[in-house]
Amino acid sequence: MLGSLPTFARLEAELSKLPGIGGKTAARLAFHLLRTNEHDVTALADALLEMRRNVRFCRRCFHIAESDVCGICTQDSRDKQRLCVVQEPQDLLAIERCRAYNGLYHVLHGALSPLDGIGPDDLKIAQLMERLDREPIEELILATNFTVEGEATALYLAHLCKERKLRVTRLAHGIPSGSDLEYIDAGTVQQAVDGRRELQFK
Amino acid sequence: MLGSLPTFARLEAELSKLPGIGGKTAARLAFHLLRTNEHDVTALADALLEMRRNVRFCRRCFHIAESDVCGICTQDSRDKQRLCVVQEPQDLLAIERCRAYNGLYHVLHGALSPLDGIGPDDLKIAQLMERLDREPIEELILATNFTVEGEATALYLAHLCKERKLRVTRLAHGIPSGSDLEYIDAGTVQQAVDGRRELQFK
Repeated sequence: MLGSLPTFARLEAELSKLPGIGGKTAARLAFHLLRTNEHDVTALADALLEMRRNVRFCRRCFHIAESDVCGICTQDSRDKQRLCVVQEPQDLLAIERCRAYNGLYHVLHGALSPLDGIGPDDLKIAQLMERLDREPIEELILATNFTVEGEATALYLAHLCKERKLRVTRLAHGIPSGSDLEYIDAGTVQQAVDGRRELQFK
Repeated sequence: MLGSLPTFARLEAELSKLPGIGGKTAARLAFHLLRTNEHDVTALADALLEMRRNVRFCRRCFHIAESDVCGICTQDSRDKQRLCVVQEPQDLLAIERCRAYNGLYHVLHGALSPLDGIGPDDLKIAQLMERLDREPIEELILATNFTVEGEATALYLAHLCKERKLRVTRLAHGIPSGSDLEYIDAGTVQQAVDGRRELQFK
C-alpha cells in the first residue's frame, strides 16, 4: 500500500526499529514528521547525527562523554576517595539527580547474567580493578540494580575486593527490590545513598 | 546534569518534541541510539531528511505522494466514478487495507471544528468541489470519522452537493461512534464500506 511511497515507508521502518515503537506508533510519528516544518525535521536529523558523532564513553569511568574524559571525572570538587559503581549511565544520572553523592563513578555497562551469556569480561570490571590499583579510592559504593543480576554483580565485585584495603558498601535497601534505579524518585535514591551499609562476609 | 553533554541533551530535547514521547522515553531512545551502530543512526537520520524532502501531497487528492500525483490517482484500474472523502491520509490507508474499495479518494486534511477555529476554508473542500465539476464522479462516499466533527463535516459536504446530480453516501455505522478510522480493524472497515447508505434530506 505504501509501494508508491518508498521514502515514507523507509522512515516508518527505521522508526519501528526503536525500542517501544511498534508499527502504529511509527506510522503516527512519520505522519507527525510529515506535517512538522522542515526546519524541525532537519534539527532532529542533525541532533541524531551529531549525538552519534560527539558522544562516546569516558575512558576513565565509561559514563557518556563528549570528550575523552567525562564532565564528572574532570570536576575538581569531586571526592576522589569514593567510587560508585553503577550498571548504566542512566543509573549514574539517577544518583546525580539526588544530589547526595559527590564522589566519582564507574559504569559497568551491564550486570553479570550467566543465562544471557554475560560474564565479567563483558563488563568494565578489569578497568574498575585497574582504577582501584591506580587511584586513591577508599570506599567502593556498589550501586548496581537491586535485581538478581545486579545483586550478583555486587557480590562478585565485593569478593574481588576482599583482599584490598577498601571499604565496600552497598546502597541501602530503601529501594524496592526488583526495580531499576533509573525510575526511582530522587528522595528514595537519596535515602539509599545515605543509608548505604558495609557488606558482611561469613 | 547533562551540562557537559550538549549534543546528547539536544537529541533528548528534539525527541521529546514528538507526540507521545515524554522526557523519560526521550532519554531511553537517546540511550538506545547511543548504543546503536553508527550505520543505523545515519540510516534513521537519512530516512527523516529524505522523507521530508520527497514526500508531498498529491495535487489532485491531497494524499501523501512522492511525485506530483499520488500512486492511487495514477492507477488506471481505479473506478473514476467513485470518490471517497476522508479526513486524513491515515484514514485513506485504513480503507485501502480493507481492499473493498477501488475508487478514488479526496483527503480533506481535517474536519470542521468551529471550537478549534477550523472552517471550510481550512480544509480541501474548494478543491473537492472543483474535482466534482471537472471529473466524471457519480458517487461521493463520505468517510470522515464518526465523531462530532467528522459527522458535521459529512453533513456539510452533503449539503454542498445537494444541487449536484450525485449519489452522496456515508460509510455504514458499523464503525463504533467516537472512534478514529485509523485504528479500526480491516473487517469492520470493510463492513462499513459495503453497508454505506444514502444520506436523507428532510
